[in-house]
Amino acid sequence: MIYDEKFVNTECPVARVVGILGDKWSLMILRDAFDGIRRFSDLQKSTGAAKNILADRLKNLVNAEILELKPAANGSAYSEYHLTEKGRGLFPVIVSLRQWGEENMFATGETHSVLVDGQSGQKLEKLLVRDVKGNSVDSSLVIRKRVVKKKG
Amino acid sequence: MIYDEKFVNTECPVARVVGILGDKWSLMILRDAFDGIRRFSDLQKSTGAAKNILADRLKNLVNAEILELKPAANGSAYSEYHLTEKGRGLFPVIVSLRQWGEENMFATGETHSVLVDGQSGQKLEKLLVRDVKGNSVDSSLVIRKRVVKKKG
Repeated sequence: MIYDEKFVNTECPVARVVGILGDKWSLMILRDAFDGIRRFSDLQKSTGAAKNILADRLKNLVNAEILELKPAANGSAYSEYHLTEKGRGLFPVIVSLRQWGEENMFATGETHSVLVDGQSGQKLEKLLVRDVKGNSVDSSLVIRKRVVKKKG
Repeated sequence: MIYDEKFVNTECPVARVVGILGDKWSLMILRDAFDGIRRFSDLQKSTGAAKNILADRLKNLVNAEILELKPAANGSAYSEYHLTEKGRGLFPVIVSLRQWGEENMFATGETHSVLVDGQSGQKLEKLLVRDVKGNSVDSSLVIRKRVVKKKG
């Protein structure tokens, strides 16, 4: 169980998420979930995680309502792990990790995967932090403000 | 040392990054780096990490050229950890974690921080995965393609 009270009782939204997702196995499971991998055995093969670790992280992601268990689509006895709507909201996290990796973790001539929109066939745009007017934001110039969470 | 050969020798860019950053302490250090926290002792206070763990993760981030050691700006004997240009490229990772946390990890009435552009005073735009034509991309419809890394 990586869920960590120390991280979750804080005003920092990053820390609260890291308390759940700040673990290589959880992030690999999330990547696989976006790739449509749903079965325990397939997740085990794809992540290379030990069974007990994988079971622990999946339980954690289900508790956090990022994944949910559903009966197998093909009617077999196995359950499948599906992203919830809340879980699908983590797509920018995986895409931003991926895009930085594509740029920085491969040498010229190495093969890597890229994501393409299956409908348009277009490559994904590079995620860029902008203000609400659409201007690119310099990471060294952002400031933190405290706010009270509003309804909804 | 969380750097993991198994994760780094793969065609998946997400796995390669997770092999370096897939750890709660590394992600907390990265958050702090974007918040301008530079000293070992300040990082220790902010993250709550044990000294040996913090030292290990910092070494790892320096090896990965995400952080670099520089003499203290005030001329004191202490060195400071600064984000490199490569490291600053991870800003969308921290912002996407934060935005998901703001939306999903706080109850109505709870206090949390938000980021604001220090120059424009504007809130940050919500990161959204789009194709290169600017159309929003459905995470369930993306496909992976293998490509060979081009120069530069």
